[in-house]
Amino acid sequence: MPDAIALREARREDVAAIVVLLADDDLGAGREVVSDPPSPAYFAAFEKVAADPRNLLAVAEDAAGVVVGTLQMTFIPGLSNQGAELALIEAVRVASSLRGQGLGQVMIGWAMDEARRRGCANIELISHGSRADAQRFYERLGFARSHVGMKRTL
Amino acid sequence: MPDAIALREARREDVAAIVVLLADDDLGAGREVVSDPPSPAYFAAFEKVAADPRNLLAVAEDAAGVVVGTLQMTFIPGLSNQGAELALIEAVRVASSLRGQGLGQVMIGWAMDEARRRGCANIELISHGSRADAQRFYERLGFARSHVGMKRTL
Repeated sequence: MPDAIALREARREDVAAIVVLLADDDLGAGREVVSDPPSPAYFAAFEKVAADPRNLLAVAEDAAGVVVGTLQMTFIPGLSNQGAELALIEAVRVASSLRGQGLGQVMIGWAMDEARRRGCANIELISHGSRADAQRFYERLGFARSHVGMKRTL
Repeated sequence: MPDAIALREARREDVAAIVVLLADDDLGAGREVVSDPPSPAYFAAFEKVAADPRNLLAVAEDAAGVVVGTLQMTFIPGLSNQGAELALIEAVRVASSLRGQGLGQVMIGWAMDEARRRGCANIELISHGSRADAQRFYERLGFARSHVGMKRTL
């Protein structure tokens, strides 16, 4: 586990590092475009997330201030479960050089604390069927494989 | 298929009917509390949803104005997929007396149109593993069972 990992809300100057993390992945590589500077579409998306109090884009940085992980949370109000809020975790990435060292556990632990702090009753995520290692990781953190995640393009 | 089904954004006076629909379900029955009037927690949740431009609680009503279905959509900004927005569908319910008559298809078709109108690239949902009929229904509408949905209480 790298020393002194800190989680914090992402800033505009983190966008390039976040895009690199999103692309550093079997599935993400085919979906993202890495360029320097990043495409304006990524900055536009960042501004929408940053402006929304129900979305939280976070980064994990090491002691040198290098961004080594990212995740996004969405806090969803709704009538279900007697009006309890739901937290959704998406776009979780750990730098490939640091995988398997406990960084993901720190990140998801932080996300669960943040969801509790905001009064959410449940937390959920959707993991691609091919990510068996990720699913075992989430099971160790108390998540149940109780649901089917279904998706289509529009 | 019931005649003249109309989908529209839910209003405060629909809360009681929505709670009845949420509870009219094997899983929902254990999670919701139906009372007249509904618990203040449901109204508080309704106000949070109604105030949020990225959440849309909808009802389906029949020609007589009776609420016979409900669903919620969340429009999630994010950097993934080159900054494309994602639509999430939750809390889908059709009145038990009307199931199997095509109402769900009208509702999900409406939700997909709404997501396209807002520029979302993808739409997704999480369905409990026990809802095999629902998953076949979504597959017929073009959704792939590509993901695992994982959940835990907080």
